[in-house]
Amino acid sequence: MARFPTIEDVAREASVSRQTVSNVLNAPEVVREETRDRVRDVIDRLGYHPHAAARRLRSQYSSTIAIRLDPITNGISGSILDRFLHSLTARAAERGMRVLLFTATDSDDELRQLRALRDSADVDAVVLTSTFTGDPRIPWLIDAGMPFVSFGRPWGEEHDESPDHRWVDVDGFTGVRDATRHLLRRGIRRIGFLGWPAGSDTGDDRRRGWATAMREQIDLTDDELELLTVRVEESVPHARMAVEKLLPLRLVDALVCVSDSVALGAMMAVAEAGRRRFPVIGFDNTPVAQAVGMSSVDQRIDEIAVAALDLLLGENGRRVLTSDEVTERTPHRLVAPQLIVRRSSHLAVAEEAGRDPGGN
Amino acid sequence: MARFPTIEDVAREASVSRQTVSNVLNAPEVVREETRDRVRDVIDRLGYHPHAAARRLRSQYSSTIAIRLDPITNGISGSILDRFLHSLTARAAERGMRVLLFTATDSDDELRQLRALRDSADVDAVVLTSTFTGDPRIPWLIDAGMPFVSFGRPWGEEHDESPDHRWVDVDGFTGVRDATRHLLRRGIRRIGFLGWPAGSDTGDDRRRGWATAMREQIDLTDDELELLTVRVEESVPHARMAVEKLLPLRLVDALVCVSDSVALGAMMAVAEAGRRRFPVIGFDNTPVAQAVGMSSVDQRIDEIAVAALDLLLGENGRRVLTSDEVTERTPHRLVAPQLIVRRSSHLAVAEEAGRDPGGN
Repeated sequence: MARFPTIEDVAREASVSRQTVSNVLNAPEVVREETRDRVRDVIDRLGYHPHAAARRLRSQYSSTIAIRLDPITNGISGSILDRFLHSLTARAAERGMRVLLFTATDSDDELRQLRALRDSADVDAVVLTSTFTGDPRIPWLIDAGMPFVSFGRPWGEEHDESPDHRWVDVDGFTGVRDATRHLLRRGIRRIGFLGWPAGSDTGDDRRRGWATAMREQIDLTDDELELLTVRVEESVPHARMAVEKLLPLRLVDALVCVSDSVALGAMMAVAEAGRRRFPVIGFDNTPVAQAVGMSSVDQRIDEIAVAALDLLLGENGRRVLTSDEVTERTPHRLVAPQLIVRRSSHLAVAEEAGRDPGGN
Repeated sequence: MARFPTIEDVAREASVSRQTVSNVLNAPEVVREETRDRVRDVIDRLGYHPHAAARRLRSQYSSTIAIRLDPITNGISGSILDRFLHSLTARAAERGMRVLLFTATDSDDELRQLRALRDSADVDAVVLTSTFTGDPRIPWLIDAGMPFVSFGRPWGEEHDESPDHRWVDVDGFTGVRDATRHLLRRGIRRIGFLGWPAGSDTGDDRRRGWATAMREQIDLTDDELELLTVRVEESVPHARMAVEKLLPLRLVDALVCVSDSVALGAMMAVAEAGRRRFPVIGFDNTPVAQAVGMSSVDQRIDEIAVAALDLLLGENGRRVLTSDEVTERTPHRLVAPQLIVRRSSHLAVAEEAGRDPGGN
C-alpha cells in the first residue's frame, strides 16, 4: 500500500493532540465521550490504522515463516513439495502465521537469501526442504541463531540428535517395507524394486525398506537383491523403457517403486505387455496415482506440516521458539506413511489369487 | 528473529553518539577514519543491521505481493496454479519483490483476509486467481484502493475495460480453436468436445473455440454441435466412463478436451477399447500430459506471470503502481496458448493418413 493516513492526520482532522488519539486507541476510558466519538469518526473516515510496521518494530516478531520455492520441475512427484506448501500455509494460518516465499538458484544463493532474510528481520523462522548429506544450510542457520525446521532429516547424521536442528521427515523405509509386506502377504515372492541410481539418501532409504521386508521372508544375498533391483532416473519414459526390457525376462512378478513417476512408467509398460496381473506400487500418492488407480505410499503431508509447526512453535504455540526454548532433547518427528491400496496392486492380486483380498 | 542489537547498543559499545553511528552508515565521509573503523568493527561484531521494519516505516513499501493459496485439490489440472505460483515467485524475485501466502475458506473469508492485509500494510499488492462472474473481490479491492492484478478476466465484463482492474488471462478460446484446426487440417471432421457442465465461464469459452473451428469447415447447427459435445465433471474416472459409453456409438473420430484430467480419462478409455488411432487433445499441458504422451494446449504460465508483474509494476518496474499511475486505458493481457503436439494426436493421425505430418 502506497500511503496511509498517520496519527498526525487524525489529530489535525479531529482538532485534538496526538496523545489524545493514542488514548482513544489504547486507553479510551481516560477520554471524554464526546471527544472519543469525534476521534473515532475521523479514524473511520480516514481509514487510519495503527501501522503494522510500527507494531512490528515494537514486538520484533513478524509472524512470518520463510520457505524457498524453486522453479517448477516437470516431474510428477515434484508436486509433493507443492502439497506441503499448501498444508503448511493452511496450518500456519490457523496459528496466525503467514508464509513468505523466496527463490534461490543454488545452495550459495540460498545462503545469500537466508542472510538477507535474517538481516531484514522480515521473518521469524525458516522452513528448509530437500535436505541432503553435508547440507551447508544447516550449520549456517545454527550459527546464525535463526530458528528453522527442515522437512528432511540431516542425512549425514552429524546433527541428528542436536536440539539446534528441528526436523520432520517421512519414514520412507517403513513405508516401502510395509508396501512390500503387503505383496508378500498375498503370496508374491519375486518382488522387484524399481529405484533411483544408488547414492540418493532418500532413494537408498526406501530401497532398504524393500530389502528388509524381502529378507524377513526369503533368504537373499546382497547380490540377489541387486539382481531384483532396477535403477532409473526419475522419469516416466526411462522407467517405461527399463520395465519393457525387464518384463520378458520373467525375473519378477511385481514391482515396488521409489516414486509415482517411475511407477507410472512401469504401469504403462505392464499394460502394453498385457500383464494385467502384475502388481505395481508407487510412492508419494500423487494425484496421478489416484487418477490411474495406482497403489501408492502416502507421505501424509498434512501431518508433516503440523509436526513442522509444532517443532517451530511448540504444540499449539503461536510464536517461534528459539533453540534455547526447545525443551526436547531431540526435537524431531519421523512420520510413518500409509499404503493406499488401489487397483494396480489390489485387483491384480485378487485376480491372481482368484479371491477378494480383505484388508491390506 | 527474536532480538537484534540496536543502534544504541552499537553507540554504547563503540563509545560514540547515536548520531555518529548513523553517520558511519549514511555519511561515512564526515567521520574520522579511526572512529569509523572502530564503529564498523562493533557493527560487525554485534551483527547490527538497520532494522527492516524501521526502514519500511519510512518507505511505506513492503516489496511484498500477497496471493491466496487454497488447500490442495487432488485434481491433475489443479497444479496449474502451483505452476503459476512458482513462476510468479521467481519473476517477482528478479524485481526485488517477495510473495506472501494467505488462505481463506471462502469468498467472505477472503475479503476478511484482504482487509487484514490492507490494514497491516504488510503488502503492496494482491494477485487474485480463479475469478468468476460477479466476483465480489474485484469491486472490493477497487473501492479499497488496493493495487491488484488478477490471473483470470472479469467474466461478467462489468469492469472489463476499467483501468482499475488489471488482469491477465489465457486465451482459452484461441487455444482450443487452434487444437481443433490442427485435427481438421489432418482430415478429421467428426471431432467431439469433451467439456465440463455448461455454465462455467472458462469451460464455455473453451467450447466456443472448438465450435468456431468446426463451423469454419462444416455447416453445423447448434443442436448438432451439442450432439458432438460430452459434458462431465472435472474427474478422470467420470471422463473415462463417459468416453467408454461414447466410443461404441462411432459418432466421433477424435476428442478435443477442456482439461488434461478429462483428456486422461478419455485416453484410458480409448486405450482399453484398442482404438489406437483415435486422437485426444488435452488442455493445460500438465506434467501428466507430458508423461503419457498427450497432446495438450499449454497455457504459457511463465508469460502469464511476467504479464501480471508488468501490469502491477510497469514494464521492468520494481514498485507497485497505483491505479492512477497505470497509463494504459485497458491494462490487460490475453496470452495466446500454444498447442504441444505429442503421440496422442500426432502418431494417431500419422498412422491414419499413412504419412508423417509435418508442422502442426
